[in-house]
Amino acid sequence: MFDVNEYFEGKVKSIAFNTDTLPATLGVMAPGEYTFGTSEFETMTVASGALTVQLPGESSWQTFNATESFTVEANQSFNVKVSVDTAYVCAYGK
Amino acid sequence: MFDVNEYFEGKVKSIAFNTDTLPATLGVMAPGEYTFGTSEFETMTVASGALTVQLPGESSWQTFNATESFTVEANQSFNVKVSVDTAYVCAYGK
Repeated sequence: MFDVNEYFEGKVKSIAFNTDTLPATLGVMAPGEYTFGTSEFETMTVASGALTVQLPGESSWQTFNATESFTVEANQSFNVKVSVDTAYVCAYGK
Repeated sequence: MFDVNEYFEGKVKSIAFNTDTLPATLGVMAPGEYTFGTSEFETMTVASGALTVQLPGESSWQTFNATESFTVEANQSFNVKVSVDTAYVCAYGK
């Protein structure tokens, strides 16, 4: 019913679901550094832990804690640093 | 690295991880009604969607939306109604 995917040799694992309006995933990232590419507009919300993020075209990094969100346009890549296991919800589309 | 479990014939699926202080799971529930038992103190936080919950010993139901939490003592059972796919984080222990 819910598909599970893993990335980065299992250091990122996610479950696909649907919010009331958009397709989404909920996932967890182990400590590490990752680069993600977007195929559509994404809204990432931290559910537990923290993501330190370098958004597309930015030189600085920002940290997002539980309940905080950021968005990334389609066809971009962004960098993430994680220091504790971090749970997130990612919604796809607007 | 992150273990995946499923319950209720796959209508509830979860991934185990560790917060900075406690073992935890993140999971998603499909629409339905569920009864869960606790083996230890649990703090459930809704990450997306909503859980309508009948806590142990209560006759009334309360709805928890995204970012809202409730706790359940160890060795109790509680009932949950879900009307849209709902993502949650559950931390075990105090």
